Amino acid sequence: MEQNHIVWHDVLITRADRNRLNNHKSGLIWLTGLSAAGKSTIALAVEKELYDRGIRTYVLDGDNVRHGLNSNLGFSPEDRKENIRRIGEVAKLMADAGVLVLTAFISPYREDRDMVRKLFDGDHFAEVFIKCSLEECEKRDPKGLYKKARAGVIKNYTGVSAPYEEPDNPELTVDTECCDIDGAVRQVLEFLSEKRFLATEYTETTES
Amino acid sequence: MEQNHIVWHDVLITRADRNRLNNHKSGLIWLTGLSAAGKSTIALAVEKELYDRGIRTYVLDGDNVRHGLNSNLGFSPEDRKENIRRIGEVAKLMADAGVLVLTAFISPYREDRDMVRKLFDGDHFAEVFIKCSLEECEKRDPKGLYKKARAGVIKNYTGVSAPYEEPDNPELTVDTECCDIDGAVRQVLEFLSEKRFLATEYTETTES
Repeated sequence: MEQNHIVWHDVLITRADRNRLNNHKSGLIWLTGLSAAGKSTIALAVEKELYDRGIRTYVLDGDNVRHGLNSNLGFSPEDRKENIRRIGEVAKLMADAGVLVLTAFISPYREDRDMVRKLFDGDHFAEVFIKCSLEECEKRDPKGLYKKARAGVIKNYTGVSAPYEEPDNPELTVDTECCDIDGAVRQVLEFLSEKRFLATEYTETTES
Repeated sequence: MEQNHIVWHDVLITRADRNRLNNHKSGLIWLTGLSAAGKSTIALAVEKELYDRGIRTYVLDGDNVRHGLNSNLGFSPEDRKENIRRIGEVAKLMADAGVLVLTAFISPYREDRDMVRKLFDGDHFAEVFIKCSLEECEKRDPKGLYKKARAGVIKNYTGVSAPYEEPDNPELTVDTECCDIDGAVRQVLEFLSEKRFLATEYTETTES
């Protein structure tokens, strides 16, 4: 490591500039919850709604991250930690670039999620707990992964053979056992509206 | 590794959708060259010009990548490879999100740069060689790093104690010994215009 030898340059365009150009705030909305709780489904549906309102968004999930950037990571606690760390850093770069990022990862460890939270100033980050009981998730089991985990075919499966630590103080909790996908999406959109992520005219409030 | 157990979801919003929303093409402009050749300076100045034209850009360079996403990597050949791989994957995600990404990294190995090129379809990627002789770079030596490398204080320094492989067929070569910064920026902007990255009205040409 020779980090002290890296030369720093002046950044000419800031996140605030990009937010002004786009006329909306950028940041990170972090969805966490068990497999099959509905994270990706909700994130992609919310993104569609945001796109229709002219808001620049991007969903980071297993599809585009585990097969690319994090293809060299497995599912051990250390690799899960590095997985979440990289996602947090990428989301930070994208938010800096003016994008409202939604992430959909189980992210089972509180410590790892808090590490991501610390990368952002408060006004540009929110943790959303997609709540669903293990029983219901196992019932849904869209790809039969819980079944494989119970049979021991898949190791370290969250909820079965690896822990899930529920958020202590998420900015929002969406219960997907009580409401359908439309209701869940509506809840997230209302929350984003309250947090001024849907403002059509961008006004600087907090700046890091 | 249990990649075969990852569930895929339908992406509802595509890069083409985002390009339409932004009214411009996204992609990756990869600057390569020796330390002190002028990569970051040119990238940041080009970004300023693009921003003024309403184009969503982002510069990835040592400042925002080596201190964040890649803070756990050093400067060995393997770590340099992983450094470039991650940058390529992040740039791919950002380009997918509608951003025109400019990267400013020495990226000394041809093989590593080609690995990044393969992540993109041709119309959305360009390699720009920021050309400057080692002699001139050593003369500039803005932070005295070449001096430290010659003294052996810094190991594996490109051009001194580690190789730099010039691009075989870069889409553009900018010689920073023959022209000043304004001239270099103009050359890049003209190139981007030719490649239709500056079009005010987005029209789909190639789609991957």
